[in-house]
Amino acid sequence: MNYIDLLGFLAGCLTTSAFVPQVIRTWKTKSTHDLSLGMWIAFCIGVLCWLVYGFILEASPIIFTNFVTLFLAGTILFLKIRYK
Amino acid sequence: MNYIDLLGFLAGCLTTSAFVPQVIRTWKTKSTHDLSLGMWIAFCIGVLCWLVYGFILEASPIIFTNFVTLFLAGTILFLKIRYK
Repeated sequence: MNYIDLLGFLAGCLTTSAFVPQVIRTWKTKSTHDLSLGMWIAFCIGVLCWLVYGFILEASPIIFTNFVTLFLAGTILFLKIRYK
Repeated sequence: MNYIDLLGFLAGCLTTSAFVPQVIRTWKTKSTHDLSLGMWIAFCIGVLCWLVYGFILEASPIIFTNFVTLFLAGTILFLKIRYK
């Protein structure tokens, strides 16, 4: 793995794991007033599209990162709808 | 452009434009209590890494989508810090 791959890997880890603190915060506070419903709906549909795109191209990095992101962003969307 | 490229383009548009309603909401309400600071810091650094990665690979779709995303996510981070 060269330094360019490493940078891509770091970028993917950051933009995926970034959602963890938001899940934890929303889970604990059960307060979602400041979260935009539109953002999380559009984002989840977009990540789902990336996932299908990854499956079509059989590109495991795209599949893996978007699978994890969909799980985390989907959890936030679920909490937003539940504690609206 | 075939249907696979179209799907990727749709995915990119969705995961980028998704941040617009959050920017609008936060800008209007000036309320950021439910937003996780950790999420937006990690996400902005991650998108910055994707941007550098795109420049190294000279991949214009990666550069363009991450440039727009960084602008939008950076605005949310700025508002989060300002209205903490």
